[in-house]
Amino acid sequence: MPRSLRVAGAQMGPTQRNDSRAATLDRLIALLEQGAAQGAGLVVFPELAFTTFFPRWLIEQDALDVYFEPAMPNPAVQPLFDRARALQVGFYVGYAEKTPEGRHFNSAVLVGPDGAILSKYRKVHLPGSVEPRAGEKYQQLEKRYFEYGDLGFPAVRGPKSWGGPITGMLICNDRRWPEAWRVLGLQGVELVCVGYNSAAYDPNGGDREDAALRTFHAKLAVQSNAYMNATWAVAVAKAGEEDGAGLIGGSCIVDPNGRIVAEAATLADEVIVADCDFDLCQQGKSKMFNFEAHRRPQWYGPITAQTGVVEPAG
Amino acid sequence: MPRSLRVAGAQMGPTQRNDSRAATLDRLIALLEQGAAQGAGLVVFPELAFTTFFPRWLIEQDALDVYFEPAMPNPAVQPLFDRARALQVGFYVGYAEKTPEGRHFNSAVLVGPDGAILSKYRKVHLPGSVEPRAGEKYQQLEKRYFEYGDLGFPAVRGPKSWGGPITGMLICNDRRWPEAWRVLGLQGVELVCVGYNSAAYDPNGGDREDAALRTFHAKLAVQSNAYMNATWAVAVAKAGEEDGAGLIGGSCIVDPNGRIVAEAATLADEVIVADCDFDLCQQGKSKMFNFEAHRRPQWYGPITAQTGVVEPAG
Repeated sequence: MPRSLRVAGAQMGPTQRNDSRAATLDRLIALLEQGAAQGAGLVVFPELAFTTFFPRWLIEQDALDVYFEPAMPNPAVQPLFDRARALQVGFYVGYAEKTPEGRHFNSAVLVGPDGAILSKYRKVHLPGSVEPRAGEKYQQLEKRYFEYGDLGFPAVRGPKSWGGPITGMLICNDRRWPEAWRVLGLQGVELVCVGYNSAAYDPNGGDREDAALRTFHAKLAVQSNAYMNATWAVAVAKAGEEDGAGLIGGSCIVDPNGRIVAEAATLADEVIVADCDFDLCQQGKSKMFNFEAHRRPQWYGPITAQTGVVEPAG
Repeated sequence: MPRSLRVAGAQMGPTQRNDSRAATLDRLIALLEQGAAQGAGLVVFPELAFTTFFPRWLIEQDALDVYFEPAMPNPAVQPLFDRARALQVGFYVGYAEKTPEGRHFNSAVLVGPDGAILSKYRKVHLPGSVEPRAGEKYQQLEKRYFEYGDLGFPAVRGPKSWGGPITGMLICNDRRWPEAWRVLGLQGVELVCVGYNSAAYDPNGGDREDAALRTFHAKLAVQSNAYMNATWAVAVAKAGEEDGAGLIGGSCIVDPNGRIVAEAATLADEVIVADCDFDLCQQGKSKMFNFEAHRRPQWYGPITAQTGVVEPAG
């Protein structure tokens, strides 16, 4: 019996700071319904999907709560969970998590077609800075607003109705770090879901990297790490201009050969779908990337023994 | 002062099993001279450049010596070293190494413009098998003929006349393993030289991966790992049909953004060149891939703690 799942990537166009949460949630539900109408059993939403990408703003602590979810689900997002369960569609969604103890994480959940949360992930690779960059209108303050993820990179076996794929989650910048993918690969991952918000250019005008180069980088990281771990990957953007700061699109579904099989064409709300045959992972996992046969961890020591660069002498 | 080096990739067309070593060496010298004539200070040759890719054949132990170098340099290859020193051009070359103790490695050396060996590397990620596959004409017996490399992934600082780039070496299959690149990246590598012999198709007729897909894989691995480690990379093939077994070409020079800046157009002897400005590595090394600021090794444990896959329960 083939182990296959039709997966949808639900790219979102921009969400402005003043957009109401209810209006944004309606967009997620509309995308979910589009994915379900196309036969998808899993819909992947972006990082921090319920709000604008607020880490670009310096916000006082007591004004932050509006961006965070005090539980998952919670009354504000319950309609998405209800609609998904009614459609028997699962989803991945990124959100800002505030725990009962008041801790903050950049998180994502994987929700099954029955509405149960299958797995939670907290972003490990937070970009940006703790302190705001002086004199700049736009910031990247993820290191200020969030703690580093403390759950590692867990993979879980998806439900039988999905073909039981071993499934992992990453969030945005994580996808540029091969270590994150490899820890998932070492769990035999067959499907990696990634939501992201990635700048299309430096909104403060200081950088030469344009949207085309940044989109190329984003795809290259997903394609190569999918290939090197013989896994499907679904990478989904929040895209377009949010309050004067641009975000790349480029949402894509990538096969275990690293080939893009579906790709967004816009910077707006847009659903892409592909049939992911998880048996296609076996070619890579059993031959080129048969880890047991070919990895040589005794020479990988610096990867875990050191954080930064140690240059050779001379 | 700009830190820049014109690098040549000296792709080689096929070398048949019955080709004489002297004729093959003449081809290397001709390629070296072409690179030098185009102003290159470093010429990168393929893996096992002095012979055919002999691990495809089952060869008796006492007939193997002809493929191995008993020292580097040695009289058979000395003309290449002499010509390079006369031209003040350095080179990377892959070769089968037999040590004075009779140990065998798939090795490469980096030779400076003065003819001195700057660094030696022994391939860590040996593909293939120890035992021949029964009933098949073509084999992949690297695990039979070579020991696993025992030098780790050393990077060295290149000479001042090259701009002093921190330089690493990989061999063939190593380039598909992000761990290898990361260990070089953690040494601040600015230039990675890779020679390869990669099958264009299964010569025994058993595999559906064609030359286009395999060439795509080869480039994807080099482009992404160059990007994720903010380094230049020069990947150089032995290409074309060797005694009925096809090898991909696709030799390329890749910038620290993962973009191909020079690329071979043939499956024959062909020189490609590019100017590698090592200061271009700083954008990635200081921002997106500032390892000290952004890596989280406490969550990378499985990469060194386990070799093969451990699937989640359930």
